[in-house]
This record gives sequence, C-alpha cells and structure tokens, in this order.
Amino acid sequence: MLMNGKQYIESIKKMRPNIYKFGKLIQDVTTDPNTALHIKSVARSYDASFDPERAPIYTAKSSLTGEIAHRWNTFMGDAAAQVGNAKMKRDQYHQTGTCQGATCAGWTALNTLWDASFECDKEFGTQYHERVKNFMRFCEDNALALAGALTDAKGDRSKKASQQANPDVTLHVKEVKPDGIIVSGYKIQICGVAACHYIIAMPGTGYGEVDKDFAVAFAVPRDEKGITIVECRGISDTRAAEEGYDMPHAGNITQAYIHFDNVFIPNERVFMCGEFKYSGRNIGNFAAIYRAAIGHCVAGQGDIMIGAAMGMARANGLSVKPFQATLNEMAINNEITAGVGLGAMMLGKTMKSGLFVPDALLAHVNKTQVAKLPYQTKVMAQDISGGIAETGCMPSWMDMQTDYGAFIKKALTAGADGESRAKLARLVEWLTVGGGIPGCMHGGGSPDGAKLVVKALTKWEEYFEQAKKIMDIPVDAVKEPEAPVKK
Amino acid sequence: MLMNGKQYIESIKKMRPNIYKFGKLIQDVTTDPNTALHIKSVARSYDASFDPERAPIYTAKSSLTGEIAHRWNTFMGDAAAQVGNAKMKRDQYHQTGTCQGATCAGWTALNTLWDASFECDKEFGTQYHERVKNFMRFCEDNALALAGALTDAKGDRSKKASQQANPDVTLHVKEVKPDGIIVSGYKIQICGVAACHYIIAMPGTGYGEVDKDFAVAFAVPRDEKGITIVECRGISDTRAAEEGYDMPHAGNITQAYIHFDNVFIPNERVFMCGEFKYSGRNIGNFAAIYRAAIGHCVAGQGDIMIGAAMGMARANGLSVKPFQATLNEMAINNEITAGVGLGAMMLGKTMKSGLFVPDALLAHVNKTQVAKLPYQTKVMAQDISGGIAETGCMPSWMDMQTDYGAFIKKALTAGADGESRAKLARLVEWLTVGGGIPGCMHGGGSPDGAKLVVKALTKWEEYFEQAKKIMDIPVDAVKEPEAPVKK
Amino acid sequence: MLMNGKQYIESIKKMRPNIYKFGKLIQDVTTDPNTALHIKSVARSYDASFDPERAPIYTAKSSLTGEIAHRWNTFMGDAAAQVGNAKMKRDQYHQTGTCQGATCAGWTALNTLWDASFECDKEFGTQYHERVKNFMRFCEDNALALAGALTDAKGDRSKKASQQANPDVTLHVKEVKPDGIIVSGYKIQICGVAACHYIIAMPGTGYGEVDKDFAVAFAVPRDEKGITIVECRGISDTRAAEEGYDMPHAGNITQAYIHFDNVFIPNERVFMCGEFKYSGRNIGNFAAIYRAAIGHCVAGQGDIMIGAAMGMARANGLSVKPFQATLNEMAINNEITAGVGLGAMMLGKTMKSGLFVPDALLAHVNKTQVAKLPYQTKVMAQDISGGIAETGCMPSWMDMQTDYGAFIKKALTAGADGESRAKLARLVEWLTVGGGIPGCMHGGGSPDGAKLVVKALTKWEEYFEQAKKIMDIPVDAVKEPEAPVKK
Amino acid sequence: MLMNGKQYIESIKKMRPNIYKFGKLIQDVTTDPNTALHIKSVARSYDASFDPERAPIYTAKSSLTGEIAHRWNTFMGDAAAQVGNAKMKRDQYHQTGTCQGATCAGWTALNTLWDASFECDKEFGTQYHERVKNFMRFCEDNALALAGALTDAKGDRSKKASQQANPDVTLHVKEVKPDGIIVSGYKIQICGVAACHYIIAMPGTGYGEVDKDFAVAFAVPRDEKGITIVECRGISDTRAAEEGYDMPHAGNITQAYIHFDNVFIPNERVFMCGEFKYSGRNIGNFAAIYRAAIGHCVAGQGDIMIGAAMGMARANGLSVKPFQATLNEMAINNEITAGVGLGAMMLGKTMKSGLFVPDALLAHVNKTQVAKLPYQTKVMAQDISGGIAETGCMPSWMDMQTDYGAFIKKALTAGADGESRAKLARLVEWLTVGGGIPGCMHGGGSPDGAKLVVKALTKWEEYFEQAKKIMDIPVDAVKEPEAPVKK
Repeated sequence: MLMNGKQYIESIKKMRPNIYKFGKLIQDVTTDPNTALHIKSVARSYDASFDPERAPIYTAKSSLTGEIAHRWNTFMGDAAAQVGNAKMKRDQYHQTGTCQGATCAGWTALNTLWDASFECDKEFGTQYHERVKNFMRFCEDNALALAGALTDAKGDRSKKASQQANPDVTLHVKEVKPDGIIVSGYKIQICGVAACHYIIAMPGTGYGEVDKDFAVAFAVPRDEKGITIVECRGISDTRAAEEGYDMPHAGNITQAYIHFDNVFIPNERVFMCGEFKYSGRNIGNFAAIYRAAIGHCVAGQGDIMIGAAMGMARANGLSVKPFQATLNEMAINNEITAGVGLGAMMLGKTMKSGLFVPDALLAHVNKTQVAKLPYQTKVMAQDISGGIAETGCMPSWMDMQTDYGAFIKKALTAGADGESRAKLARLVEWLTVGGGIPGCMHGGGSPDGAKLVVKALTKWEEYFEQAKKIMDIPVDAVKEPEAPVKK
Repeated sequence: MLMNGKQYIESIKKMRPNIYKFGKLIQDVTTDPNTALHIKSVARSYDASFDPERAPIYTAKSSLTGEIAHRWNTFMGDAAAQVGNAKMKRDQYHQTGTCQGATCAGWTALNTLWDASFECDKEFGTQYHERVKNFMRFCEDNALALAGALTDAKGDRSKKASQQANPDVTLHVKEVKPDGIIVSGYKIQICGVAACHYIIAMPGTGYGEVDKDFAVAFAVPRDEKGITIVECRGISDTRAAEEGYDMPHAGNITQAYIHFDNVFIPNERVFMCGEFKYSGRNIGNFAAIYRAAIGHCVAGQGDIMIGAAMGMARANGLSVKPFQATLNEMAINNEITAGVGLGAMMLGKTMKSGLFVPDALLAHVNKTQVAKLPYQTKVMAQDISGGIAETGCMPSWMDMQTDYGAFIKKALTAGADGESRAKLARLVEWLTVGGGIPGCMHGGGSPDGAKLVVKALTKWEEYFEQAKKIMDIPVDAVKEPEAPVKK
Repeated sequence: MLMNGKQYIESIKKMRPNIYKFGKLIQDVTTDPNTALHIKSVARSYDASFDPERAPIYTAKSSLTGEIAHRWNTFMGDAAAQVGNAKMKRDQYHQTGTCQGATCAGWTALNTLWDASFECDKEFGTQYHERVKNFMRFCEDNALALAGALTDAKGDRSKKASQQANPDVTLHVKEVKPDGIIVSGYKIQICGVAACHYIIAMPGTGYGEVDKDFAVAFAVPRDEKGITIVECRGISDTRAAEEGYDMPHAGNITQAYIHFDNVFIPNERVFMCGEFKYSGRNIGNFAAIYRAAIGHCVAGQGDIMIGAAMGMARANGLSVKPFQATLNEMAINNEITAGVGLGAMMLGKTMKSGLFVPDALLAHVNKTQVAKLPYQTKVMAQDISGGIAETGCMPSWMDMQTDYGAFIKKALTAGADGESRAKLARLVEWLTVGGGIPGCMHGGGSPDGAKLVVKALTKWEEYFEQAKKIMDIPVDAVKEPEAPVKK
Repeated sequence: MLMNGKQYIESIKKMRPNIYKFGKLIQDVTTDPNTALHIKSVARSYDASFDPERAPIYTAKSSLTGEIAHRWNTFMGDAAAQVGNAKMKRDQYHQTGTCQGATCAGWTALNTLWDASFECDKEFGTQYHERVKNFMRFCEDNALALAGALTDAKGDRSKKASQQANPDVTLHVKEVKPDGIIVSGYKIQICGVAACHYIIAMPGTGYGEVDKDFAVAFAVPRDEKGITIVECRGISDTRAAEEGYDMPHAGNITQAYIHFDNVFIPNERVFMCGEFKYSGRNIGNFAAIYRAAIGHCVAGQGDIMIGAAMGMARANGLSVKPFQATLNEMAINNEITAGVGLGAMMLGKTMKSGLFVPDALLAHVNKTQVAKLPYQTKVMAQDISGGIAETGCMPSWMDMQTDYGAFIKKALTAGADGESRAKLARLVEWLTVGGGIPGCMHGGGSPDGAKLVVKALTKWEEYFEQAKKIMDIPVDAVKEPEAPVKK
C-alpha cells in the first residue's frame, strides 16, 4: 500500500504522546517545532512515491506481493535494490538538505533480521523468519515508517553488558512469558524516532552465553506502553521555533534517547531472544548495507553544499568561475563516497536467505571516508561563501524586521538583495555548523570500528608473501619478532 | 593605570545603551545574556593584570610613561612586544576557550596608525601622529578596552567605493568641519564592540583620489551619538540566556554590525582623513602584526580542544593512550600556527616610526594555515570524543532536571558521572560546531587575500633562474609565452 | 588460442629488431636487460592462463567463438568483464610489483574501436566494424599481446594539429592508397611496446574538418617497416643490467617514443581514417573503461607496498603492530581507488554496439584519486620502512660482494639477515622512488583532464536550484553576474 | 682563515683514499664521478665566502678570534647565528638543488659538544671543554669541512647497545690508553663524508652505566688509519658517470657507511668518554639546532622545485598563470618549514655555556613538517610538469646524440627547444624521484622520534585542567581509568 504525505502525518498525529524535549512533553509531534520539520521531510518521501518522475526512486516492487510499495518497506534481494536505496538517500538530501531517519535504519534492520532469522531458525529450529516476513508484509500493507534502534548506552566500556552495575545501560530481556517478552533498558542517539510508526530494536554484538539476555531483537510501536523518549538538543535547535529564515524549513534531524521500562513485546514481534550467536552476523550485514549506502547521504548533502556555495558566491557579487577548482574538489569528494559504496554493491553477494549484501571491506572503507571527506567539503563551502556564512555572521531575522533593520538589509545587499543573501548564508551555516550536520563521523558507528573491519579483512600476510617473492627472499628470513620475554 | 575586572565592568555599565540583538535594545550589556559573557571574559584579562603569575603576560611597561600598563594599551616597539601579544592571546583562550575582541584589533589598529600617521605627517605635513600618541596615552591612563572596526559592508564588489549606489556601504567622511568631521556608513562583523570603551575605525585599501573620502581613521566612544550597533546571531546563541551547562559560561564572542549615522568626530580623534596613500601601508602593517599573532589564538583554542578531547576520552571510560597519535597531531597543528607567527616576528623589522612589524610573507603564510589547520584539529577533537560530542547528541540540561531526567543521567554515566560527561561533550560541541568557533577562515580577512600577498612576495622568477642555472639552460631558451593575439 | 609464457617469448624473439635504448639497437628484446624484464612479466600472464587457480582471472570466454581466450584478447560486453579486467590488473601487480603495458591499453583500445566503428559505419556507411571484429578474432586466434598508442607528441599546445610547424608531432595519414594508407608521425610515452606483437594506434580528440588526417586508427605489427622505437630511460634503470638485488627482477615497465615514418597500413587493419566525429566518442569510452580499471593497478601496487613495508618493519627488528594505523590507511587508499572504479562499473551501461562502458563521472573521479592517493601510500611505506629504504640508503650489491662487504652485511643485520633486509629496502626504494613507479599522475592522461570531465558531468545548476528551493529563494534573486562591460 | 673552492679541493685531494663505491676504491674523490659533484658543491660555499654579495651568508665573525671565518666553523651564540645557519642552508640549495653535508651536521655537533663538555666538566671535573674550544679554533684556522657521524647501525632494537651480539653495531671505546682511546664500530648513513676533512663522532642516547663505553665523542681526520668508508648507492646514481644532462651537475649528496676498526683517537680530540649522563643533553641540543634549521633546507629545495615547475610549464608551451594556485601552495609549504624553524629560534634560550638553543618543541614540530610537506611539494611539481617529468619519461641523452635522436628532439620541442625541455624534465625527475632527494623523512632522525618529543613537551594535563575549569567540572570527576586488574 502507498500512503501520501498527508495520510502519513495523520497517522503519526494519532499516536500517544511520549516524546519530550526541553523538559516538556510534546503533545503533537506533527506540529511541535521540535519535531514537525523532521516529520515534514518524511512526508515528502511519501508524496514523492506518487510523483511520476520520482516514484521509481521512492518505490519498488514488493518481492512478497509483487505490488508497488514504498521502497523503505521492501526486501533488498539484489544489487539494484541496494543502488535504489542509495539513490533514494541522495535524493532525500536534495529535497531537504539533511537526513531522514524514519525511512532508513529501521528498514535496513528489518532486512538484516530477515537473514539472521533465516540462519537462526535453520540452526536452532526457532520460528523467527516467518515473523520477520509477516512483519515486513505488515509494514508494506500499512506503509509504515520505521526507526532502527541499535546503539545502547553501554556504560563502562571495560565491562561486558552482563557485568554492568546498571543492567539498563543495555537493552535486555527481563522476563520471558508464554505470549511474549518483557524488555528494559536504554537505546540512545536513535534517529527518526519522532517520525516513525514502529521501532525496530536490534542487539549489539560481542555477546556470549552470560550476555544472552542482551541478544534481543523486536518491533514495537513507538508509543507502546512503557516507552519514554527524549529528543536530543541539536546545534542552534531553538531556531526551529522561530519565525523567519534563520534556519531552513525543509527538514531537520531528530535523535532520541529511548527508555524501555518493562515493555511487553508479543511473540509475533520478537525476532531474536537469546540467540547471541547471530547478533554478530546481523550487525555485520547491517553495517555492510548501511555503510555502502551512506556515501550517498553525505554526497547528497555535499551536492547541496555545492549549490549553496555557488549561491553565496553569486550573492556576494562574484561569479562562480574563480571557485571552479574548489567546486570540483567538492564534487569529487561527493562522488568518492557515492562511488566506493557502489563499488561495494558491485562486489556484493546474495546470501542463502535471499538478502543481497554489499562487500564488507569496501563498505567499511567507505565509512572511513564518510567520516572524513564531508568535513573537507564543509570547509570548502565556507571558503567560497565568505565570513558571512562561516559562523552566520549577521544579525538575526528578528533584527531585520525592526526599523533599524533597514540598514542591515542594505549592508547585506551585494550580488543579490540582502534577504536572499542572508538566506543563503544561513543555509551554509546550517549545513556546516548548524542543525543540518548529519553526524557523519560517528553516526551509524565510529570510523575506528570500520578500521577494525578493514584490518580484519585485508590480506596482510598475503601481501607480505608476494613482496618477498618479488625479491626472492627465503621463506623464513623475515619474521614477526617473538614477544619479548618478561620476567 | 591598571583597572581590575570589577572596575572595568562598572565603566562599561555606565555607557549609553545603543546595542541591539534579537530585535531589542540591550539595556545593560554587562548583565544581558547576549553580551555579558563576552564582557566577563574581558574582565578576566583586567583581573589577570593583578595576578602576580600572569601579570607579565597581561601587562607591559609603557614606552610613553615608563609605567606598567595593560598590555593592550601599549606601543609595540620590538619583537618581544609582539611575542607578548601572541602569548597573551593564547592565555586568553586558555581562560575562556574563545576570543576576546576588545583587547585585540583596536589595540593593533592604534599601533599601526602610529606608523601611518608618522609617515603621513612627514609627507603631507599633517598633525596626526601627535594625536595618535595622545590617544594612546589616554588609553593607558584610562585602561581602555578598544574594538577595531576595519571591515566595510562593501556592497557590489565589481565597483569602487565611490561608485556604489549606496555610499554608506563603506564608512566615509561626509563633511569636514573646523573642529572635526562628520562620518557615515556601515562597518560590519566587528568583534568585541559590546565590551569596548572606544572603537578605532580604520579604512580599507585600494583607494585613489576619487575615493579619498573613504580613507578615514578615528577613535570614537562606542556609545557616541549617531552610532547604532546590532549584534550578529551566532551558532546556538540562544543558550546564553539559558540556565545550566548546555554551553560554557567562561566567555563568548560578539560580532557587530555598526551603523555610523552622521557621527561627529572631534579633530583630536581623527587620525586619517583623505590621505588614501597611507591606507595601504596602514592595512599592510595591521595584517602583518595581526596575522603573526592569530596563530596563537587558534593554538590556544586548540589547546582547549586537546584538554576537552582528553576529558571526553576519560569520561567515555577510556584512557587517553590509544588517542596519543591523534593528540600529537592536534598539538602539532597548534604549534605550527604559533610557530610560523613567531618566525614572522624573528624576521620582523623596526620601522622609522619605531613600530616593530613582523615579516609580511610569513605572517600571511600563517593566515593560510590559521584558515586550515584548526578545522583539522576540530575533526580530531570530534573523532576522539565520540558521537555524543560530535553534534551534542544528548538531551538538554532542562530535560535532565525533570523526573525522567534520571534515566538520561544514568545513560550518560560511564568513565565519569553523567553530568560531567555531558559538560565535556557540550564543551566539544561548542568548540567545534558551536559559539566558540572564532571564525578562523575569514575572520580578520580571508585566506585568498593572504595568498595574493604570498604571490606578491615570493621570488618566483628568481627561483626559475636558479633552476635554469643548475641545468645550464641558455638564458632565453624558456620563456613565458606571449599572449595569444586576438582580433 | 592460448599460448604459454615460453611460446610467447619465442614469438617476440622472432620480430625484427627496431627498438633502441642508450644509443644502441637492441638485438634481442627478450634477453636485453633493458626490455627482458618487461617481457618476462608479460610471460607470467601467459603462464597464469594455464594455472588452474589463476586461469579465471587471466582468461575469459570469447564472445566471438565461445572458446576460452586470454582475457586481454576478448570483448568486454558486461560489468563482469570490466570487473575481470580490474582484477587481472591487481593480480599482475601482485606478481611483479608493477605494470604490464602489453596486456592493457591496446586491448582496451580495440574494445572501444569496436564501438566507434559500429557507430561510424552506421552513420557514414564505412566498413570498419567488420575489420575490428576480424582483428579481434585474429588476436584471439594468435594470443597476441597488444600495445595501445594514444599520446601524440603534440608540439605547441596553443595550436591545432593541422597548424603545427612540424605535422609529425601528431600521427597522421599522409596518403590514402587503394589498398591501404601511409601514416607518419610520433606517438610518445607508449607503454609495453617492447613486449607486444601489434600496436593499436588511436587518435586524440578535438579534431575538426581541417584536422581530419589526424583522426586515424589502425593495428600494425610492432616491427613493421618504417617504425623506429626508442625506449625512455627510467629511474635507476641501469640497474636492470646489473647482477644482484639492487632492483627486483620480477618485472619492469617500458615506455617508448615511436616514430612512424611513412608506414603502410593495409585496409583491413585501418579502423578510422578521417572520421574525426568519432574520435571523441572513442576516447571517451577508452577513458571510462581505462580509468575505471586503473584503480586496481595502483591498488595492486599499494598491496605490495603494504607487504614490503611490513617486511621492512620486521627486518628492522620491529613488530608490525605499532604501524597498524598507518597500514590501515595504506589499505584504505588502495580500496578507494579500487572501489570507485567498481562503482563506475556498477553504474555502467551497455552501448548499442554491445560494449559495456562504466560510468564516466565516477571513472574520471577515480583518475583524480589515482593521481593522488598512491603518493600518500608511498610516503607511508617510506615512513614505516625507515631511512634505509627512503632513498635506498645503503651500499650497492657490488660492495657487499667484496671483502669489506662483510661489515656492511653485519651493519644491516637486525630483525633479519643483512641481505634480506637490503632486498626489502631496495624493493621499497624501487616502488617509491625507483623504476617501479607506474606514473600514476599523468600516465593514461593527466588529472586536469579528468577534472574537466568532472566539471562537464556534474549537475552544478541543478544543485544550485535545490539549495534555493530549500531556502525559498525567489527564482531570479541570485544570478551569475553579467560579464563586466569593457570599453 | 678563509679558503677558496680551489684550495679546498686541493686539500681534500691530498687525503688518503679510503672510500669505496660499486666495489672499488675511489682513488681521487675530487675527480671520481661518484663523489666529485658533492665536493664541487661544497667548493661553491668556500667560493661564496669571497663573493661580496654572499659573504654575509657564508661567513661570520668568530667569537674566538674576532676574525671573519667560514660560518660552518663558528660558534653559535645567539639567535642571529641560528638564523644565519638557516639562511646559508637555503642558499646552498638554491645553488646546487640539494644538500651539502660537509658544512652542516659536523659543525652543529661541534657546537653542541661545546655545551655538553661545559656541563660535563662542571660536574665531573673532566677537561673536555677546553679541547672542544681548541678544536673549534683549529677548524677556523684551517677552514675545515666537517662531517657529523651520529647514527649507529644499532642492530637488534629490542636490546641495548651493551647487549648486542655484535658490539660493533654501535661505535664504542675498546680501550682507554694514557694518550688516547681506541674506538671500533659502525656509523651509517653519514652525509658529506667524502667532502670533509674531519669527522665529528657523537654518541646516541639512552645509555646507562652498563653502556658507558658507547658514550663517546671525538674528532678524527676522515682518512685516519683504521677507517673504511663505503658510499651508499643512491637513486639513478650511475648517471653521475655519464656525459650529458640526464642529471644536473651542480651538486649531489653522498651518504656513507663508516667502519671504525680499532681507530686511535688522541686525548686532545676526545670530547666525551663514558659520561653517558651528557649524551642525552648533547643529542637534545643537536636536535633542537638541527631541526630548527632543516626547514630552510627543504624550503630551499622547494624553491628550486617552484622554479623547475615554472620552467616545465613554459617549456610545455603553457603560461605559469593557470598553475598559480598550485605554485602558491608550494611556496606556502616552503615557508611553513622555514617559518616554524625561525619560530623555534625566536623562543630560543642561551645556555650557561653560551650556546644558543632554539625552542625544542617548535624544532621537533618542524621536523614533523619537514617529513611531510616536501612530499606534497614534489607531487605539485610533478603535477605542473606533466608526464614527461613525472618519471623522466623520455629517451636518454645518449639516444638524442644518434641519428634517430633528431626525431626525439623534434618530438620534445614545444614551448622551448627539445633539449631545454629535456633538461628541465630531468631536473624535476632528479628533485622528485632522483638523486636530489635529501631524505627529508628519516634524514637527521625520524618523525616518530620528533613526535615523542612533542608528546613529552606538550602540557597535556594543563590543557585538561583548563578545559575542566571552563565547564566548572569538579576536580576529581573525570580521571584516567586505573589499569585493569590482571590475575
């Protein structure tokens, strides 16, 4: 089923208020300035599914029903589906300048649970796969927006989940009942929660028998009893409640801390419960899919930085020509992250479960670049745009509405009227040192973790052997030193 | 005379309210959250002048009176004075994490006017030098804080100042009277105005006979009749009015748009009026002094980024050891900008007027690095600090004060209590994507301008001749091609 | 047909000597030290075609005959063929540490002529396509090695080919005869000529009607009458004639200047002759295929740099562990160039002629990285390896064979015997500042050209429009300034 | 005393032949192509001492005699002397394109021994200082060239010098006699030995009581009995013996492995013998002086890279204008390394002994940049110069002298005659991938060592305390975690 933006907003409006920000309960997330912009941007994707030009990007044929569905509800069974994921993300950034959590991580999580449940059932005789399939069908049938809740608060990192003084720092099963399970704990920094219908919770990795209660995956309505959500405060976020153009109003990110306090999950929505062996595979597939696609997110934002910087050059009264070399570098940065992700898809493989998984080495290499190149692109956008944009160095919109505001507008007038120049400067500010920053360094996992995977997947000793062979060095002539003996 | 922080604040409090922000007149800049923090940070420098340990940094012996004065009121006549300038700046950043406009550009401007007036008087028989000297003495005697107003709004950059549709886009002399001059126009993005007693206005450069009205320099009380000031809105600046620790409260930057509307300047405060020939020399000396010293500003902030990142590593429950290589790179970046500036001082020269001016080539090279390396340092601070700091990804202080706030603090507890961890994360946010950013790219002039100076001062053709000589290439064998003939 | 390495060498040995170096004619390229190593490395690829493990990399099923052929003789009709090209290149570097010209550019050139001839015939009714097809079949049947000759000497770059004082600076048709054509001119910096059976000559681009004689493509035996070849001297190339291990003996690059002096090309080997309109398409396809694949060349060499640097760390008596972060960066650089190329293949398209062409934007983006990242990788290899490898800082192999040589070997003994350490240091020297450098900056075209393509293919104005839309800026409010009026 | 170049060469010619290369004894280092170029470049500095324009750079007033002496024989007692050292180095590179070992490290070593001997005598009542002073006077009186031998072969790095299986891997005292000492061991990678009169040997650091035999410093004639020297083979070094312009003939580097085999050093030339406590101070001062100055070495070579790249652009038929941005970056890199070194001098201090020592932190920061920026500058030189220069991609000079050589010269003719273009291309090759590379990564010590000093001298915990203070964090709230308890 397809739903349009208006229907989507209506469906969200009906949910129980359980989201807080700035010390207050948000009564209606669809109108409260702290969440409304994010929901508006998701609504654009619902609407785009009906736009003939954009529908091929935002919809796909369901492998379950053969019907057209919102892309973010469908199964990804081949490279084309992964490319579609990536292209949708880049287009979403083009529309709103920023990230749309509710059509992203939850969908990917559901796809990877498809595979983990398939393997888990095969080994342990569990019944998860059918539940995942049914829930995916349910998402398609109801055109759901999904948030993906992966990150746990974790607490003291020198200890395992089961050794923490406060067990709630990791989401876990408190009780297994005949008809479902009771879960408690904190998931933090979760994107898109305010705009979703359901949350897909997934476990971290590295768990053993003693931590098995932490190996839990499920789907739950965002407004389920026992769930309390607090939105993070972002950069310059109070502007969302202001009139005027001191920030763009096309979209915004939300990131939430979620408290699961003895929440009941019925069996048909439980997708993993103690089978810690499969949490690693699940996260591995998630990371490979997610990190192959995120290059298109930052590329999409980079494209807007290009457009905004071009606009600033012109509004400053200059041509874009003298900035062409810098613009080229920005475009190259965008295409590198897009390209390495596509390369991961090119080398991807279809799992036995049917899930198509991009090459893990290239996906993680891409994460390292996603954590690096957008920073350079931002600096270039600021370089082109001038001091007015670097730190948003001009009076507020409110000041411009006063009688003394006339002089400000005159002072800003150059290659464009003062107001248009101010808008572009605010856009650059927002993209580079404002709420538009999608957290590309640590969002979706830190680059250090990606480097561990690069280390694990690179054939170091093979390259060493080849080097030796090229120089005819005897097999045992050069070796890693033995550990120094300690007394 | 030395004044302490309390006396300084009292002196500022007495001034006429003529500063606006968010559409409103600020009644008392010393208490209004939009300006008070900046004034508080300047007050620290006044107090430091009495601290035995720090007095050598914050004070200097006056060359006019032989008495100890606040360093920012004194004449810079040798390399040691420039080094003192630099060291004071680094220390100021250590105290407040950010920039203190009111002890910086105005002081430097007054020093360069010392030299320009000296040369101008010699050629044109004007009387400016004595006035500068008297005003410098006046500053010392009254322990004044000074803002330096250099940047004009400029308008359409393809036209000269005299050709602009709106002449006010550049500050200019409207009328010369027997006892003084009337000036009008806009100076924009001026740092530290709210915290200063006097504004030193200086002209831009590139002026000819037709633009001579724009070659005007003077000193004027910040609250003079006819002056209207509007503060820029910075990143996350509404937090200044909030309770709690969502931003630091040690200091803050202000940047203002100033409207001079038929302001009268008495003759004894006029330091240039039409002698466009000396505006270039004046700006040249200003840039050499300023850009030799700013390396210490960004180094000082970089030091705090090191400290904050170390704190975050620990608060996240980790040791700083695994981050040592990154911390080293941060320190190296800091020392490069500090070091190149000191190198400029090492090669500096004393002018006939007595002013000591650092080497221009190295000072401008330093500007290019000040516009580059701090960005890398920020990324490294974010890298070490984790996702919680990258975009300030946690709920607000207000949320933490509620009943549901308990779970947030528990979720944040790791290597430190949740509150301390939140404070450090907010500090990193503020330093890297918040109000602490001092605008190192375009502040004090863009790197593109510095590169033009690098181009002008590098001995290109000499290096080409040396290369040819090394290879015994005949003198005329290799030449720049003639311009293609066009018809 | 498949040929093994020995048969290949025999076939090359039979050719007429027409290659010079160091002022002398090389009598037998298969034994002369200046060319033998390159031929040896190509022979490895012939042999690899019979190695069961490597045959899938080095062979492919012919689309002309359905038989297994050497991969470098076959038609590339889908993404898998392009991936195969890339993987073969990486493996070739693994075997020899460097480039194998004779299985690379000529093959790609033949593939792109397949498409250009197809389109040309369709428009102009020419007969080239069948000739290309026949020649490709001929290559497969005879297991030929092919060099691709693209770069012309060009002369004065401010003039067109037809305007040059010396027309020979661009290869051109001098005469069209009933049975063939006479061509003259210089092709320079051509890789792999000494190891090939045939040269595929291709025209540059940018030609119009007056330059149509320069739009010429053909295949010709390397030893054809009228062809004189002079090999370039490379870095440390005299070591090839030395005994010992001061350079590796697994492979080497050759690059030649070719003088075509009234060479007759029979009609069946002429693939373009004046149809300048298709030279652009031909070069465009060549660049897209070539630049999508070269990322694997430099990745392959980068892999060997990793292995060599690991070896040096160990031979220096250290573990590789403290260098892991640097090794990771090297691996990431390798995978970026590999990955962006694969991304170009992921987005590639099949032409009407059947040729599969990778995405041009990503292929050219990759060229910019191939011209950048390997330099960083080299620096990292030198960093890990120490001073002994940076400039090959040790006495020659000859010195080590003397009586005083004993002390040198003792001085070099650390984590490995002195000789093995010397070998590894020489390998790093050769890879980073020696004959192993494949010319990744300008080889196969300069990055500046690639940036022009990036400029042409990026949707600049579309991004500008999206930025404006996000900020609700009126359509005409911000525009590129009109050119300033000049009088 | 001053000596001119001719006299200098004569004095070197008289020395005993004890230098080998390519397996043979060099009979006359002043004429043998393997060493003559280096000696020629040192002779230029002797001649420059008589050139009125350059004498202020190449000479200084002796603090011992008050007479003018070659700068490289004099004591460095103030910042001006250090600046003079730096400026001389940059000029030497301008003359020859490369390094002149025999006027560099030996001189600096003698200066630092001045201080170490002063302190050592004070503590231990030894007599070294007078000897150093006498020897410095002897150098001045005889206008000597000095090599500085610091690096030991070291052997197995996991063991101390006294634990090595072969004690010769570190130079050491074998016997103390009444009139002098007997020393044995290997010093390796020593620059400028072939061009020096005396070698100054200095110990490494980190020695304790058991290693005291390794704490030995002395001066010895290069041709002393028992000394055997083998020159390293450098990149493309056989070209030195060729006719023509395939490498420049203005200067060259030599680096030697030295075998001290029971060499007798009379007491008056022994400057340290067992006082291991002062080897650290000595090396520390050496590194501070040396690393403050080397920025000017690589800047000087960078200047020639600028000139050569400008030449190539022109010889390729282009203007330098489109390359201005890249040229600027090259110049900026040069000035950064020059500038940070000058900054170290600006903050330098005079020791009790009278030696002026630059700031260690900035000197070591500079080393990290000397090991980094020249690589970037090289890449930029190659970028501008094109493929012909990147790997020296053209036939040899020998080929150009043949009858077929005519076509090569024609093929190379563009913005300059073919020969001039070839010369410039060979210069770029030599500077970037040839014998001109001065080993800026590891030469004079590796950047890793410099980073250890940066780590030791940076006030990490002070910055952490400042960060905490800015956020009002309680003193003990955030701490480095205790080491995990192990059982």
